[in-house]
Amino acid sequence: MTDKDAVLAANLEFYRAFATRDIAAMDALWARRSPVACLHPGWSALTDREAVMSSWDGILSSPNSPRIVCYDERVLLFGNTALVLCEEELDGGTLAASNIFVREDGEWRLAHHHAGQVVRRQAEQRRPTRLN
Amino acid sequence: MTDKDAVLAANLEFYRAFATRDIAAMDALWARRSPVACLHPGWSALTDREAVMSSWDGILSSPNSPRIVCYDERVLLFGNTALVLCEEELDGGTLAASNIFVREDGEWRLAHHHAGQVVRRQAEQRRPTRLN
Repeated sequence: MTDKDAVLAANLEFYRAFATRDIAAMDALWARRSPVACLHPGWSALTDREAVMSSWDGILSSPNSPRIVCYDERVLLFGNTALVLCEEELDGGTLAASNIFVREDGEWRLAHHHAGQVVRRQAEQRRPTRLN
Repeated sequence: MTDKDAVLAANLEFYRAFATRDIAAMDALWARRSPVACLHPGWSALTDREAVMSSWDGILSSPNSPRIVCYDERVLLFGNTALVLCEEELDGGTLAASNIFVREDGEWRLAHHHAGQVVRRQAEQRRPTRLN
């Protein structure tokens, strides 16, 4: 498997954990030795692993946790760090996401997630890759 | 100078180029060999260096180019890649930014900029570090 494919697989695992409210898988996906951060839409940045995981506990255990579709993934590789850009379709609109992965113990683990609203002006053909 | 200080200096240079509409400095700051991407607020991602620089040409040469203040920078180091989280105060509101830098020829160069709106609920003390 190429680095690009492995990073894409890790990114899909993130959206699978999100879509299925799998808190344990979400925790396993985030880096343990590298620093981590998370910028949920409209929030200020969380930069402490405990605070990041607590935010995901709250989101994934909420009855109002959004349905999510991820599409249009693009991977940028920087050696042992990688960036996945993708769009997220939620009940409340479309978000653009930047997900940073770092290589730890041969695994690509999530070090940063930043999602923010997209103001889309044109109708576009979309290629969903993860549904719930 | 530590890596953290050098990354912070590169981040300040980004906001200096933005604030002073210095298109040449903005171009010099962006990585040349690494892949680059940019997610302006509300836009879909740009992942081509020419498209990224064209977007900055448009923003910086516009008479409506916003005034900008950067504050609350935090640096996460991943070897030869670094993430700066910071907030941006513009005429139109507050944005949270994720800026990825990569080391090229001993310089930290910008590989990705993602800014999105913050919905702030509490009054906070802010520490501006760059004004125009």
